[in-house]
Amino acid sequence: MTRRIRFSLNRDAEPTTPDGAPGVCYGILEGEAVVANGATHRLAELRLLPPCWPTKIVCVGRNYREHAAELGNAPPTEPLIFLKPVSALVAHGDAILYPSISARVDYEGELGVVIGRRARHVKREDALEYVRGYTCVNDVTARDLQQKDGQWTRAKGFDTFCSVGPWMVPRDEVRFDELRVRTFLDGQKRQDASVRDMIFPVSRIIEFVTEVMTLEPGDLIATGTPAGIGPMQAGSVVRVEIEGLGALENRVVKP
Amino acid sequence: MTRRIRFSLNRDAEPTTPDGAPGVCYGILEGEAVVANGATHRLAELRLLPPCWPTKIVCVGRNYREHAAELGNAPPTEPLIFLKPVSALVAHGDAILYPSISARVDYEGELGVVIGRRARHVKREDALEYVRGYTCVNDVTARDLQQKDGQWTRAKGFDTFCSVGPWMVPRDEVRFDELRVRTFLDGQKRQDASVRDMIFPVSRIIEFVTEVMTLEPGDLIATGTPAGIGPMQAGSVVRVEIEGLGALENRVVKP
Repeated sequence: MTRRIRFSLNRDAEPTTPDGAPGVCYGILEGEAVVANGATHRLAELRLLPPCWPTKIVCVGRNYREHAAELGNAPPTEPLIFLKPVSALVAHGDAILYPSISARVDYEGELGVVIGRRARHVKREDALEYVRGYTCVNDVTARDLQQKDGQWTRAKGFDTFCSVGPWMVPRDEVRFDELRVRTFLDGQKRQDASVRDMIFPVSRIIEFVTEVMTLEPGDLIATGTPAGIGPMQAGSVVRVEIEGLGALENRVVKP
Repeated sequence: MTRRIRFSLNRDAEPTTPDGAPGVCYGILEGEAVVANGATHRLAELRLLPPCWPTKIVCVGRNYREHAAELGNAPPTEPLIFLKPVSALVAHGDAILYPSISARVDYEGELGVVIGRRARHVKREDALEYVRGYTCVNDVTARDLQQKDGQWTRAKGFDTFCSVGPWMVPRDEVRFDELRVRTFLDGQKRQDASVRDMIFPVSRIIEFVTEVMTLEPGDLIATGTPAGIGPMQAGSVVRVEIEGLGALENRVVKP
């Protein structure tokens, strides 16, 4: 399994440091060594960043039947999409900040899809050709504000509410049928589902999204969360694990 | 009035060409001449781009009482925000593409706010210091899909559904009290309201948004549309005019 990481040579870089900023590189993680542009670094000396730098983050709501049901919703007849701002991005190991204006902040473990080339009006049978690779996403959600606002932008859009990583695995190395999304809160398993249980598979999501908006290389799709969502507390450690892809871990912190 | 434009030296550049791409510059428009980096160009030889390159586009819904009422909604008690993707950006003079999957595409003329420096947890009394300038926005909306989806991302997110420009006027040259947003469809006035009629003024919007997400230089806020929304047809010419700011014109095209 090839682990493609994105990092900064500046250990103090913010998780939202964009591509093109000084010190931002892509590389391959091999054990604790990172190979990038012919040089080898030690992972511990770098600042791990989210594995892609998107121009937009498109998320799918209610894409698992049992999750739709647990929040009292009927399964949708076509994908329900929303956006998270890029300012919400954090990497593996970063803190998820608990906003003072929410009293319920939930994890949502999800399969993340990184786009590899510009995609516009793509048919589902061609869609996977536009994928660069896969990663883990935690689509953190202030559940109380989601229910209050109607539109989900605020509830899903806080800084640190989109954790991605730790790395991206190239498309050709991922066997879809074997992927399970599991989320652990303080070591206890809370979500566990096969991506085969998605109502709309990745290919249909890409078809649907690109009928609306052009996807650019590096854009991220979060494909929806399975049943088992629930609240996190300050101090909680949350881990989104997808077998064959990696485990994305973050601690929840009240600033 | 200083007219700050953004353009590409490549006349075939797409409206979504980002900052940093070859040929993309900022300049000042004086009559038909553009002064940029000490050189003078003729406007007709350039590709006008949206006047800012945002990392995100934050929009406010139902921010005028009469507009909330015309769609059957109560005025909100706090700002209702949503996002448009940057892939939706077009400039003055560009086509707005009528999607085949919608049967009703509306104009929404709005005051646009361009952020000048990083803004996080900003208080309303300081908020206007974070503004670089103002511009006109057409927050184009597939009304039928907005009502169908619940979440507004698809209805508001089609390519070409965020027209911005033609230029940005620096903050210090804009007298808020005098601004009126007027929208004309094929020369007929459809919207006409003072920005003083906003339920939440720009300073409160910035306070609200930056409590959630960090705004970066170049980020765009669309502050909501007044009453008078309505559908456009293929072939229609729509003009969003803000006195003292400029007039943003686009033609609707069925591809």
